Amino acid sequence: MFTLLQPLLFLPQTIITFFRIIKTKENMSNTQVYFRKVPTTYPVNGEHIEVVKTPFSADTVELADGDFLIKNLVLSVDPYMRGRMRNQTKKSYSPAFAIDAVLNGAGVSVVLRSKNENFKAGDYVYGLIGWEEYTVVRAAMAGSFQLRNEAKDSGLPISNYIGVLGMPGMTAYIGLYKFANMKAGETLFVSAAAGAVGQLVGQIGKINGLHVVGSVGDDSKAKYLIDECDFDAVFNYKTTNVAEGLAEHCPNGVDIYFENVGGKTLEAVIDAANNFARIVVCGMISQYNLENPEPVHNLVQIIGKRIRMEGFIVGDSAAEYRPAFVKDVTTWLKEGKIQYKEDVAVGIENAPEAFIGMLKGKNFGKQVVKIADA
Amino acid sequence: MFTLLQPLLFLPQTIITFFRIIKTKENMSNTQVYFRKVPTTYPVNGEHIEVVKTPFSADTVELADGDFLIKNLVLSVDPYMRGRMRNQTKKSYSPAFAIDAVLNGAGVSVVLRSKNENFKAGDYVYGLIGWEEYTVVRAAMAGSFQLRNEAKDSGLPISNYIGVLGMPGMTAYIGLYKFANMKAGETLFVSAAAGAVGQLVGQIGKINGLHVVGSVGDDSKAKYLIDECDFDAVFNYKTTNVAEGLAEHCPNGVDIYFENVGGKTLEAVIDAANNFARIVVCGMISQYNLENPEPVHNLVQIIGKRIRMEGFIVGDSAAEYRPAFVKDVTTWLKEGKIQYKEDVAVGIENAPEAFIGMLKGKNFGKQVVKIADA
Repeated sequence: MFTLLQPLLFLPQTIITFFRIIKTKENMSNTQVYFRKVPTTYPVNGEHIEVVKTPFSADTVELADGDFLIKNLVLSVDPYMRGRMRNQTKKSYSPAFAIDAVLNGAGVSVVLRSKNENFKAGDYVYGLIGWEEYTVVRAAMAGSFQLRNEAKDSGLPISNYIGVLGMPGMTAYIGLYKFANMKAGETLFVSAAAGAVGQLVGQIGKINGLHVVGSVGDDSKAKYLIDECDFDAVFNYKTTNVAEGLAEHCPNGVDIYFENVGGKTLEAVIDAANNFARIVVCGMISQYNLENPEPVHNLVQIIGKRIRMEGFIVGDSAAEYRPAFVKDVTTWLKEGKIQYKEDVAVGIENAPEAFIGMLKGKNFGKQVVKIADA
Repeated sequence: MFTLLQPLLFLPQTIITFFRIIKTKENMSNTQVYFRKVPTTYPVNGEHIEVVKTPFSADTVELADGDFLIKNLVLSVDPYMRGRMRNQTKKSYSPAFAIDAVLNGAGVSVVLRSKNENFKAGDYVYGLIGWEEYTVVRAAMAGSFQLRNEAKDSGLPISNYIGVLGMPGMTAYIGLYKFANMKAGETLFVSAAAGAVGQLVGQIGKINGLHVVGSVGDDSKAKYLIDECDFDAVFNYKTTNVAEGLAEHCPNGVDIYFENVGGKTLEAVIDAANNFARIVVCGMISQYNLENPEPVHNLVQIIGKRIRMEGFIVGDSAAEYRPAFVKDVTTWLKEGKIQYKEDVAVGIENAPEAFIGMLKGKNFGKQVVKIADA
């Protein structure tokens, strides 16, 4: 018996030693995702993006005055990031990623050490973080970070603060409240309807008395939107022709189109649009990975139908709309009036595939990467 | 000498008899333009449109209560009429022309006989007239006619009342004042710039302090717009690539595009557009006679540049804007602040070629048909 039990007696100590090694090892490296090369179609992990383990010590990394060190908890992975993977010379609203630099995006993190009086150890912050486990926020960038200590005790998942309560949620909110001119009884169509923005678009539409129809690329997404999010109808664009889907589910035509995909879907919606329709152009994800974008042939209908098509960027109106957005959406979430589905990849090393999968429509719900627990 | 002079003695009587015959003959027929067949590309005179001389007596044609008879003086020939040459089943903002019926369009006429108390013989009227010398306005349609006796003594050409002071002029006015959100110092680009709408667009732009650039299909039109209409720059799209023309003449980019042509020009303007550019979509004449419309490939820029593209129809806002429009434009014309060039075809029998020529860009200035003197 003794010989059989003997190893167990040593187990606790073994485990402690084992985890000490792990912890020390973790603290000695920083897993990071680098941008290596501008892709022409879909980015490829290992070619355009690369996961690298860098020697790093969270305990000893040097901080200058005003700097602080954060441990990243959740990272937001969004379609617009594909547009940042371009040549530096090409101007756009969002800066191009630099070659051989760590990618970055919105995230929520916890402060580990700080030489900045505005951020102290233990604070939760929201800002542009690296695709990495630890980020040293230099003093020059500190001002772009916001304290988010309410995330600790709101009862809502931390990931909500980069999704339904972050940039994607605000995009849905501003798109509708600023540009869509919603009138109860009208028909709203939203593409990529189960995505980070789309699912909230539909639910805000319902709250405002609209007939809400969505398109998705997967039947389980359709079921979720109808069963959980109160959409009136959802069709799968991979199995239903968009024009036929619109004809069936928008019998009174389309008054508002919340545009997330572009290309042939946009063309079908222009055909189905009512007079004075509003096309709120948020994104065109179907076009981002095409060398030659799909053309639109029927713009002449813009005249006779008096269609208004308008593109927007959430940042332009964020300051103006943030207070109402945070108040409304927090209330709706807590009251269970809205649902918000997230697709959580675990581990920063899985961020590249989560990003590429999202560009291909594989995610179900807002794509996030959970990097660590607090 | 007698034998030589003898014919001359009879001349006055001969002339009188000759003109009596002419006058009687005129009064015995009505030259009309019929719509015969829906064209797929450019309409062809004699196939899709046909000039017909119909027996008619202006003196004896029967009028019921509320009817009146008009002699048509000037007829407006406009691009949107091509859109009315479609199958009746296809709905649009403007009714389809009926096959084997006389075409119609805006015109100014003089009342010859009347059984309508609102219109008396000698009155000038503006309304939807037939493409013909005489039109019997039935009581049911009388309400759509407006008295325009100011055209008799304003000193302005009667044709101005179907051009710069009519629908095309109001289109320019509403397009800019309602949809363009003009700010002094911005750059306005207008295509078909020497056309009925375009020339006024540019001049209103100048009055509002804009940098005004136009495109035309003929160097003489460019010269007119620069020399007479105060445009800052005009290029000929047939000899200058549109993208290069825009790069050269809109060095600060395009803030407002007044869209009259569509297709490749629209694509080039989207490329050259500034952030928050407004594209006021008035017409797309380059597309009306194509079986397969030219596609636009770069709509994705609408997002990053936050472009607003909006179609409009003058009739929607005419009532609201008419008083200001008539006051402003009449003043500008009388003060010589604006010029307005017309391309006058003489005789209703020449209306088909004037219309087809306009669709091909052959007109120089607003295309009108002078049917008769008052």
